[in-house]
Amino acid sequence: MSLAGATQDEVRRHNLAALVRFLHDHGSTSRSELVSHTGLNRSTVGGLLSDLVAADLVRETEPVGRGVGRPSYGVEPVGDSAYVLAIDLRVDRTIAALVGFGGVVLERREHRYRKGQPREERIVAQLVAVCHDLLRAAPARAVMVGVGVGVPGLVRQPDGLVRFAPNLGWVDVPLGEHLVEALGLSVPIVVGNDSDLGAIAERLRGSAVGAANVVYLSGQVGVGGGIVVDGNLMMGAQGYAGEIGHMRVNPRGRACRCGAIGCWETEIGEPAVRAATSSPEGMPVAEIVARAAAGDKAAIKGLRSVGEWLGVGVANIVNILNPDVVVFGGTLREILPVVRSAVEAAVAGALAAPGEHVVLALPALGDDSTLLGAAETAFAPLLEDPLGVIAGGRPTRLAPASPASVPSPRA
Amino acid sequence: MSLAGATQDEVRRHNLAALVRFLHDHGSTSRSELVSHTGLNRSTVGGLLSDLVAADLVRETEPVGRGVGRPSYGVEPVGDSAYVLAIDLRVDRTIAALVGFGGVVLERREHRYRKGQPREERIVAQLVAVCHDLLRAAPARAVMVGVGVGVPGLVRQPDGLVRFAPNLGWVDVPLGEHLVEALGLSVPIVVGNDSDLGAIAERLRGSAVGAANVVYLSGQVGVGGGIVVDGNLMMGAQGYAGEIGHMRVNPRGRACRCGAIGCWETEIGEPAVRAATSSPEGMPVAEIVARAAAGDKAAIKGLRSVGEWLGVGVANIVNILNPDVVVFGGTLREILPVVRSAVEAAVAGALAAPGEHVVLALPALGDDSTLLGAAETAFAPLLEDPLGVIAGGRPTRLAPASPASVPSPRA
Repeated sequence: MSLAGATQDEVRRHNLAALVRFLHDHGSTSRSELVSHTGLNRSTVGGLLSDLVAADLVRETEPVGRGVGRPSYGVEPVGDSAYVLAIDLRVDRTIAALVGFGGVVLERREHRYRKGQPREERIVAQLVAVCHDLLRAAPARAVMVGVGVGVPGLVRQPDGLVRFAPNLGWVDVPLGEHLVEALGLSVPIVVGNDSDLGAIAERLRGSAVGAANVVYLSGQVGVGGGIVVDGNLMMGAQGYAGEIGHMRVNPRGRACRCGAIGCWETEIGEPAVRAATSSPEGMPVAEIVARAAAGDKAAIKGLRSVGEWLGVGVANIVNILNPDVVVFGGTLREILPVVRSAVEAAVAGALAAPGEHVVLALPALGDDSTLLGAAETAFAPLLEDPLGVIAGGRPTRLAPASPASVPSPRA
Repeated sequence: MSLAGATQDEVRRHNLAALVRFLHDHGSTSRSELVSHTGLNRSTVGGLLSDLVAADLVRETEPVGRGVGRPSYGVEPVGDSAYVLAIDLRVDRTIAALVGFGGVVLERREHRYRKGQPREERIVAQLVAVCHDLLRAAPARAVMVGVGVGVPGLVRQPDGLVRFAPNLGWVDVPLGEHLVEALGLSVPIVVGNDSDLGAIAERLRGSAVGAANVVYLSGQVGVGGGIVVDGNLMMGAQGYAGEIGHMRVNPRGRACRCGAIGCWETEIGEPAVRAATSSPEGMPVAEIVARAAAGDKAAIKGLRSVGEWLGVGVANIVNILNPDVVVFGGTLREILPVVRSAVEAAVAGALAAPGEHVVLALPALGDDSTLLGAAETAFAPLLEDPLGVIAGGRPTRLAPASPASVPSPRA
């Protein structure tokens, strides 16, 4: 950002945003680290921190550092000063959480659907119930910043229309609108693709910190991909990039929910893993992996075949995208450890140059990559204008004429 | 670029670069267009143009525009004031050209190899002979800016080491070094992947002008891809992104030169087209397409199958990358028109959202996309510091102690 011609207010907001972004991303730090990170002088940082402390976003802690030189005051984000509502909407369940400033999960709920794929209205109704329940547990006096939602499908921006979520059976579902209406909140609601959000979170706080080129694979019933290129999420022309699960790798294979034959997810998605291992309907992938570990022959043989197909697709990703890191999320997180040698062999069979440095990683955020990525997108307003959002957020967060009103987060 | 704190010289260089870049990219224009494009005032633009005219890079033409207001002077790049040497090194031949400022091809040579794949030393020797011949034809007094080379393989940056070019049989060939030594030029030599360069040129002057997300496919013996994401060439972690030809689409298919089975190029590359159409060794794809047009049954049937495989890969590209435009270069330029309906059907079978807007285009630069992309990378120094390069370039372009000395471009 060029600051030439900026007003004093703009400069101050810009500098506050830089401090708040650093604290949000890195957690506890010291004044001197903030000085060296921002390039601002010590007294400017001190003044800005006073404002953030007064707004209750930041607290000072014991002096940090010893040895020569004077000790530097410690600074840390106040996790329950501001929060977002983060939702990971899956094919079989919804996970929702309140995530505080600094990326701390404050409260968390998980709700499994009863059976199969419930219809759109029921999923939305259950989602809204979970959110209401969560919001009742919101910390007193905390400011709600926004709502972030991850969906296993193609999401149009900026309105959050779910264009196609084959494994939910959704076509053109205005999820963003539904939630705005049902939750009755006046904060922004951002709907994104689950794998894109996973990639964001793993790059910020997980296994791909510092990597410029990342692919996050999200295995559920289907398989999605979030692609980071040169540090930026790759959206593509209309925001639909990353549908790696619908890469056709086996044109003589099975029919996919998308209508094509032999998509990658028909070989490595959850139903494919069950089919390959002759496991009963509904058995979780973790249990199949456990059976293989216990010596179950069918499970071992089936997972070997899944591992080969996993390798084919990962090698393609390596050849096409030349990533630093591929992160295996969702069910692939369970599968990778038992098929790693097959996947590594396949990557070794990719072109040598892009294959020689790529890291095949498990998500450091475990099962929460998408959830925390959804939280990150929801935090954006606070990270751009911290004091503006806090000042605007304290009086009330309720939409004035909301049809289905929600308990105030501070009730 | 933030100009805060820049010196007057830096500002002037920056402004000159903006004018020269615009003239190079857009050709003939008017003073008022330059004023509105750069946001500089009329007298500043006038002063900068005087300098560029004095350096012989730009000439003024008849006033442009009529109707109300005073007419604006026309301005155009002087094509033979500065030039680059551009090389498109292929599996069966080398194409080389002198390309002048503004992107005009001044001189062009094409040299087919005698048979099969000549070895590295012979290709380099022939390449050097072609370059010497071309340089003798360079315009008098013109300044040579650089050399750009496109290679069908993985190229390491910034040294131009060709890591792997399977269809040339090259592994770790220091092509950049070889050329620096053999050509004895003191200008920079940039070696790049042929498809990346094709993507750059088609986006700048071809079928993808203005598109932010582009995939350029280059069909030869193998198939390469140049990927533009949000206006920037996607390099990947080590610069090897875009090896779309080595996406495995048919794991029960043929062995690929890269060592894997069923890579896309084994189904749509030149040898695959000949095999599918039962055409004799060495028959060019253009001739096979002509035979099909003339009603040859084997050619028709074979191309239909090639078209289906082409469609599978393009649908994958659409699902993974969500491009605005896919440009079909090289042999695919011959094939697309006769299999377009099959490819469109496959794209229609991709996910609806990314598939609904994508344009399947032929390269507007015909067979010259890679050549002109190589020229663009070579022009970079001139576009960054126009008067510096012209001033530095006029005295001599010969490296002082070059082992194989080259006739001066101005001899």
